[in-house]
Amino acid sequence: MRELGEFALIERINAGRVQTKGVLLGPGDDAALIAAPDGRFVVSTDMLVQGRHFRLDWSSPRDIGGKAIAQNAADVVAMGAVPSAFVVALGCPADTPLDFVDGLADGMWAEAARAGASIAGGDLVRSTEIVLSVTAFGDLHGRPAITRSGARVGDTVAVAGRLGWSAAGLDVLSRGIEPTDDLADALAAHRVPRPPYGAVLDALADTAPHALTDVSDGLLADLGHMSEASGVAIDLDSAALADTALAALAATLDADAAQWILTGGEDHAFAAAWPPGRALPAGWVPIGRVCAGHGVTVDGIVRPGTGGWESFSGADSAPAPGPR
Amino acid sequence: MRELGEFALIERINAGRVQTKGVLLGPGDDAALIAAPDGRFVVSTDMLVQGRHFRLDWSSPRDIGGKAIAQNAADVVAMGAVPSAFVVALGCPADTPLDFVDGLADGMWAEAARAGASIAGGDLVRSTEIVLSVTAFGDLHGRPAITRSGARVGDTVAVAGRLGWSAAGLDVLSRGIEPTDDLADALAAHRVPRPPYGAVLDALADTAPHALTDVSDGLLADLGHMSEASGVAIDLDSAALADTALAALAATLDADAAQWILTGGEDHAFAAAWPPGRALPAGWVPIGRVCAGHGVTVDGIVRPGTGGWESFSGADSAPAPGPR
Repeated sequence: MRELGEFALIERINAGRVQTKGVLLGPGDDAALIAAPDGRFVVSTDMLVQGRHFRLDWSSPRDIGGKAIAQNAADVVAMGAVPSAFVVALGCPADTPLDFVDGLADGMWAEAARAGASIAGGDLVRSTEIVLSVTAFGDLHGRPAITRSGARVGDTVAVAGRLGWSAAGLDVLSRGIEPTDDLADALAAHRVPRPPYGAVLDALADTAPHALTDVSDGLLADLGHMSEASGVAIDLDSAALADTALAALAATLDADAAQWILTGGEDHAFAAAWPPGRALPAGWVPIGRVCAGHGVTVDGIVRPGTGGWESFSGADSAPAPGPR
Repeated sequence: MRELGEFALIERINAGRVQTKGVLLGPGDDAALIAAPDGRFVVSTDMLVQGRHFRLDWSSPRDIGGKAIAQNAADVVAMGAVPSAFVVALGCPADTPLDFVDGLADGMWAEAARAGASIAGGDLVRSTEIVLSVTAFGDLHGRPAITRSGARVGDTVAVAGRLGWSAAGLDVLSRGIEPTDDLADALAAHRVPRPPYGAVLDALADTAPHALTDVSDGLLADLGHMSEASGVAIDLDSAALADTALAALAATLDADAAQWILTGGEDHAFAAAWPPGRALPAGWVPIGRVCAGHGVTVDGIVRPGTGGWESFSGADSAPAPGPR
């Protein structure tokens, strides 16, 4: 990167990229200009740090770029908004290979396209460790934002997307287990989460959930936030959460599939509280219900030691990247 | 920070903060919601890295926070937009003192208030070096965005804000010169730039420049971008750029004031090409004119070695923070 320099590198990253129509003015000036048709925009930002949120020996540059976009797009969709654009700030050492930046950008653009949006601008600076900061924007199409605070007693709690597979992949990588075909799904889930954006956005044309969140810190942690914000309790049905394929995988690894499902983050599935008495939209599976009280239980019991991801816990040089 | 943890720290940072009215939904959910009254928003993002863009022994946490917001707000104002909100992602080691985060947040909120906006959300992660990524939003109030590409032959080139003072302050710090009262202005300019947002935004009620940019990479570099984007040449008048106080300071330090003025970045002044034949708005000083041709000259002559700031030039462990 040192040979090419900042401005030539930015030109290289942006060469041939086609902006989606919501990007009214893309890279190249002091700032970008994005459409916000209903007079508002949703925004979420996440920072990913090398060694902490990703490892270069575990994920390809393309995987890392895709995941960075996916987790931010999931936050925007978790408000009920359609992704409209992203901006990306990247810090990396001057001796970073150009291949890394090319792969990262390709992965970001591919996932942005999956989410229906493009990358409207960014910043490129030098740093000691690789740091990626993504900001995602979304358009609510005139609808109210769907927060975590609207869950009501009697609502059906449901998820769209898989749970626990990313944690299984992380477990495999952390334990240095030789990858086999049987582990491919879990590794892919960890490396390249595919949030089911459509399961949320297609449903919203007909009906909105009372509360919605993405599952990034772990199911119990994220539903804990919903329960607290809504002033309700949530009880989950362990049978509804069971995943035969994941359980089989866990058995071969002497691991606990329920732990992966309940506390693993990074799947970027969606969890919602749907009004009772009507069919769930396509892609949603019921896993529990909203009750009076507070806290999250499984089959009526509080599960111990399930706090979810916390950025500043543990040793400073955490070897394994984890959820956010 | 390790003792307090991520969620308590976020709560602490946000305690008692009052969002401006354009922030429809602030921190606490998957994403924030910001007003975009005219159906568009301007966005700019910048990353600041410890040791590269700031030094803890040169600037207070409050200074660093203020500068991070100022440089992003300046980018938004340089499009002709009124700042509406910011989001901030912060990476820092787990042993970072709470005082640092408190000071940083106070500095950010104070400068956001100067710009008329508030901090609507963010992210907090662990990293080895301190990294700050700010994304700024602005509202054009229905006006067209003012890019760098509209300068026309005959336009008056003018600046709002001081030039060269931040570079003078950086020079003092880099050379380890004992700070005296005479150096206070330069040090303050480097540590806490105060972009003259009002000089741009007040003018826009009456008249818009043909082209506008902030001066962040150095006057010659930034006007070079304008000249290239507009397909014109720009000739500066060295007499109009002269600054008696800065020249006096340069003399005592055996430095070149013209070099500071022409190539120093980080003042976050504004430079614009104004239509000829009418008075400049308040706060603007003419420094040259737009001519046919290409490139930027001073008194008709190309000044050598004035390329401005480039992120990946020089050694990997740059000791002195520099412009962006």
